[in-house]
Amino acid sequence: MKLLKRTLEWLDDVIIDPYGEIASKFKTFAIPKGSLGRLEELATIYASIRGGVNVKINHKKIFTMAGDHGVVEEGVSAFPQHVTGQMVRNFIEGGAAINVLARHIGAKVIVVDCGIVSYVETNPCLKMKKIGPGTKNMAVGPAMSREEAIRSVEAGIELIEEEVKEGLDIIGAGDMGIANTTPSSAILAVLGRMDVDSATGRGTGLNEESYQRKVRVIKKAIDVNQPDPDDPLDVLAKVGGYEIGGIAGLCLGAARYRIPVILDGFISTAGALIAHAIEPKVNGYLISSHVSAEKGHRIMLDLLGKKPLFNLNMRLGEGTGAALGISMMEAGVKLLTEMATFQEAGVSEPHIQ
Amino acid sequence: MKLLKRTLEWLDDVIIDPYGEIASKFKTFAIPKGSLGRLEELATIYASIRGGVNVKINHKKIFTMAGDHGVVEEGVSAFPQHVTGQMVRNFIEGGAAINVLARHIGAKVIVVDCGIVSYVETNPCLKMKKIGPGTKNMAVGPAMSREEAIRSVEAGIELIEEEVKEGLDIIGAGDMGIANTTPSSAILAVLGRMDVDSATGRGTGLNEESYQRKVRVIKKAIDVNQPDPDDPLDVLAKVGGYEIGGIAGLCLGAARYRIPVILDGFISTAGALIAHAIEPKVNGYLISSHVSAEKGHRIMLDLLGKKPLFNLNMRLGEGTGAALGISMMEAGVKLLTEMATFQEAGVSEPHIQ
Repeated sequence: MKLLKRTLEWLDDVIIDPYGEIASKFKTFAIPKGSLGRLEELATIYASIRGGVNVKINHKKIFTMAGDHGVVEEGVSAFPQHVTGQMVRNFIEGGAAINVLARHIGAKVIVVDCGIVSYVETNPCLKMKKIGPGTKNMAVGPAMSREEAIRSVEAGIELIEEEVKEGLDIIGAGDMGIANTTPSSAILAVLGRMDVDSATGRGTGLNEESYQRKVRVIKKAIDVNQPDPDDPLDVLAKVGGYEIGGIAGLCLGAARYRIPVILDGFISTAGALIAHAIEPKVNGYLISSHVSAEKGHRIMLDLLGKKPLFNLNMRLGEGTGAALGISMMEAGVKLLTEMATFQEAGVSEPHIQ
Repeated sequence: MKLLKRTLEWLDDVIIDPYGEIASKFKTFAIPKGSLGRLEELATIYASIRGGVNVKINHKKIFTMAGDHGVVEEGVSAFPQHVTGQMVRNFIEGGAAINVLARHIGAKVIVVDCGIVSYVETNPCLKMKKIGPGTKNMAVGPAMSREEAIRSVEAGIELIEEEVKEGLDIIGAGDMGIANTTPSSAILAVLGRMDVDSATGRGTGLNEESYQRKVRVIKKAIDVNQPDPDDPLDVLAKVGGYEIGGIAGLCLGAARYRIPVILDGFISTAGALIAHAIEPKVNGYLISSHVSAEKGHRIMLDLLGKKPLFNLNMRLGEGTGAALGISMMEAGVKLLTEMATFQEAGVSEPHIQ
């Protein structure tokens, strides 16, 4: 609890362009005013978080946070549980979608075992933050203890502290965990104070029968555990997951060190919801990339007041949407720092406004 | 006319994944089926155009096609005409938004003088395809002769032929030209057989009075010239522009050499509309990147049956939206060619569908 407490004490609000210097710089560029649209907005957010117009993104890192879920035994996923561990090995070997997209944008993938069932051999690309061998089945009792929930959040904060030392300018928050849309929907239903049906989608591709079962399982989990919507650590403990807690920790830790967090899809944003419920000041550091095809994702983004940058109908997780979002934010930042002004370019300004 | 005729004779339809090999390959990847959304669609289009799954994007080139417009004397733009030439110099010097974004995605910018008023010094980054010193004022007569219209389209085809020799795997079609939303709106109104008000937006940022003047000018140009909606070269000659004809030529030339074309904003898509009216088979080679803030752009994309990849409220042109679109298509292609299969990754397939 000490690390979490200290992190929250240091965490400050983002004030957008407090001295107007970012907007002023954009006004000097040889472009029609406002014509860069949301690229200017992204650059403004980045520079505001990082403290000025002289910014550069050198170190891009995508955290793929992996965890297993006891609730898988209720038949809520199309894939068997050991796929989580198999995919962790795939991430380490560089063959997964997130590896391809991270290479495409020049980012490093950091794979984190937050608590998977499988044993994966030690590897320099793998960080061990194992809280336990998968959560317990939330349909019959709490997914984890409150202590474990705190430790999972602190694991995310630790990751940031470790990477800050190596250089860290922007992060993507991704996930891997068979069945983890189930706890994510439960978190949305509880924190968003909404019905389970609206918060629940088809995950990796459930048929109607399995989908209805998933909805019943989530309702049962909430009924059995009675998570307190005013206590985000209670919600995380009772109907959450280790990697979701880890993502919440990434958000809080990154915010404390003034590092922008690019959210990925449904599970990533569930972690952000937990972080936001713990400390609303984190919100200014969170940037939405895509809205995924998973039903509740747009509702989550609305709760956080975020407008996604794009909708490519993706629903893979891993950090794949975040990777594309990082590239867009970097594009905006480069425009801010590399463009010629009207004066430098010898270009006339508009004669009518 | 010979080059255009020959190009059209060689231009073939795109058949999407004729042997099903692209879809088959995606099915082998260790991901839930369809979870890559439009990235899979982009890869499928690319591989279909290029003729198979063994593809690689080495040479990315963005053409920034510049031209001036006699109609500027009617007061339809917020910027004075000499800004076109100033911006061409800015592109050559590498200080414009398109230079920054092209560097970001690893593409080359090819600046083309299709017919600007200013004289710009010879430069290796500048291609000279000057049809004339700006078009004539379309509010009082045709913008150019039919011969010039054909030459402007053939200039675009020539650019492709020149670059194919150096290596060309994907292109972005961008523009620069003070007042060129005016001919683009006229083209949309004529080819889309729609009213001028719906086809006309505020360009670089007109106030209400100037906007109303712009609408009147476009109506007058159509009334004076009576462009034939069934004859796209007549439309281009009477209410078009040199760079718009050049973009139409880029589309046709690229299609003839089976090279995908990433469209940019309103002017770029006006060029695509001309190309599509000349030869509908070109459509399969055209990929929409963003939908711009300029009012008529979405209508143009609807006419071409294109769904934009993103909406960042941009309205700059130059090829800036196309640059981000190229990066997304490349992301999709890399997923197709670099991902591990279920078998290679040792990952179990889903047990329920």
